[in-house]
Amino acid sequence: MIVATTIAELKQALKEWRESAPSTARVGFVPTMGFLHEGHASLMRRSKAECEYSVLSIFVNPLQFGPNEDFDRYPRDAERDLALAEANGIDLVFMPSVAEMYPKKPVTKILISEVTERLCGASRPGHFDGVGIVVSKLFHLVQPDRAYFGMKDAQQVAVIERMTEDLNIPVEIVPCETVREADGLALSSRNVYLSQEERAQAVILSQTLKAAETWVKTPGMTKRALSDKIESSIGQASLAEIDYAEILTYPDLEEPDAAADLSDYEGKLIIALAVKFGRTRLIDNRLLELRGGGIHV
Amino acid sequence: MIVATTIAELKQALKEWRESAPSTARVGFVPTMGFLHEGHASLMRRSKAECEYSVLSIFVNPLQFGPNEDFDRYPRDAERDLALAEANGIDLVFMPSVAEMYPKKPVTKILISEVTERLCGASRPGHFDGVGIVVSKLFHLVQPDRAYFGMKDAQQVAVIERMTEDLNIPVEIVPCETVREADGLALSSRNVYLSQEERAQAVILSQTLKAAETWVKTPGMTKRALSDKIESSIGQASLAEIDYAEILTYPDLEEPDAAADLSDYEGKLIIALAVKFGRTRLIDNRLLELRGGGIHV
Repeated sequence: MIVATTIAELKQALKEWRESAPSTARVGFVPTMGFLHEGHASLMRRSKAECEYSVLSIFVNPLQFGPNEDFDRYPRDAERDLALAEANGIDLVFMPSVAEMYPKKPVTKILISEVTERLCGASRPGHFDGVGIVVSKLFHLVQPDRAYFGMKDAQQVAVIERMTEDLNIPVEIVPCETVREADGLALSSRNVYLSQEERAQAVILSQTLKAAETWVKTPGMTKRALSDKIESSIGQASLAEIDYAEILTYPDLEEPDAAADLSDYEGKLIIALAVKFGRTRLIDNRLLELRGGGIHV
Repeated sequence: MIVATTIAELKQALKEWRESAPSTARVGFVPTMGFLHEGHASLMRRSKAECEYSVLSIFVNPLQFGPNEDFDRYPRDAERDLALAEANGIDLVFMPSVAEMYPKKPVTKILISEVTERLCGASRPGHFDGVGIVVSKLFHLVQPDRAYFGMKDAQQVAVIERMTEDLNIPVEIVPCETVREADGLALSSRNVYLSQEERAQAVILSQTLKAAETWVKTPGMTKRALSDKIESSIGQASLAEIDYAEILTYPDLEEPDAAADLSDYEGKLIIALAVKFGRTRLIDNRLLELRGGGIHV
């Protein structure tokens, strides 16, 4: 496994591989912020299974953190990350410094509207601008055929799919299922922030989402009524503070008709949660494919 | 020469060529809005000379025209363009419809600040946002090694150079010298709009720029004094209406110190003009490489 910390090293490694590989060989790419867990590992294994060469990037991107967010304390463990990458079939790791990625202040911004209006786009202003520029830079540097993203960040997937479509970036975005702990908590590098009690209560997100899948089938269930049930369910966890709990169409992330009977809805809906436990903000979601009169996940 | 009107045809032609070409073979790209003239032809010939495969695009991009600009009446002549492309060594022409390039309204914007604050960025609001998105899309579709742009649009060159740098787009931007008529008028597809009298007077732009190259050497010449001389020179043409006449640093396009003696300036300055003759807006510029105490173009 090659570890590149500069763009020149990355390009050299890719060039050498491409020159020796057949022209049909594919490059798979897993962009991450490091502190890797089994969720990331599942993306790496999928890349390994589907592509001839797998690239992982580890870069905590300052531009996607707000001024009061956790950029400085975001957990890092390069040594463990590299061992996990190697164990999961990665061929090349790109691990640049901030100065390598942003040698000067970029004057170019990528602004994505509409799909960023709600959820994390609303509660983290500027977040998706930062995601847009860094993902675009990484795609240009690695030039992958496929890029793997976890559906825990469902809005990020929707944003990146729309950006690559709008800009004709030649990469296939592959959304991958969220990986969970045994009790249902979605894996996240931020889970390490949780105290023991917070960790115990954090299971309320996945439990509520699972219950909501049943609630939505109740005849006459409106968006408002479903929201109320979701919020009161999360409220059972005494330490939980709701940032948002929304029911939206997917992948456009628009509000469904407020008066509609959701049990009759046909199409994809996403129930998306962001909940704070102390200073730690967790997100989770469930994508429901509804065909009217019932549910088929 | 292959003519592709759809993205699928373009990609197929590029794929077939890339599969048969050696891995070191280069793709040159000349993006245009058509109604080709000798300026475009010089870009095509340079691509042909430097690259194994040359791609020309012809697309009048609605997003870079303002609501009161000349999108609808912008001159078009596909047949003549294709003949000129073939005669100048182009291998593949991409000539898409607006619906092919923008199948739906993009929610992604590329906003470039600082280098777009003055000149055409100031007098044509939104123009460079439109340039940014279309050039980025075309780069992703063609994936060229080199892209050729005329220096008549010097600010466009500066903007595209900065965008590709900020986003790490893997393409080399090659700025090419402005091609001129015998009397000095810079070639432009918009020159066909000019009446006989306007055409005769339009030579004032290149004449003024040439004179300014001498004026700037005068000891004690300030930006303000040079501006006055330039404006009164253009004022000799009775039909000329100045949109802007600016002296800026290049490629950052910032104002030099107003009080400075320009004859002592060291570095690159650009004198950039936009002048209207009736409804027709012409631009021209001259890049000066100053080393203090004299001029060396």
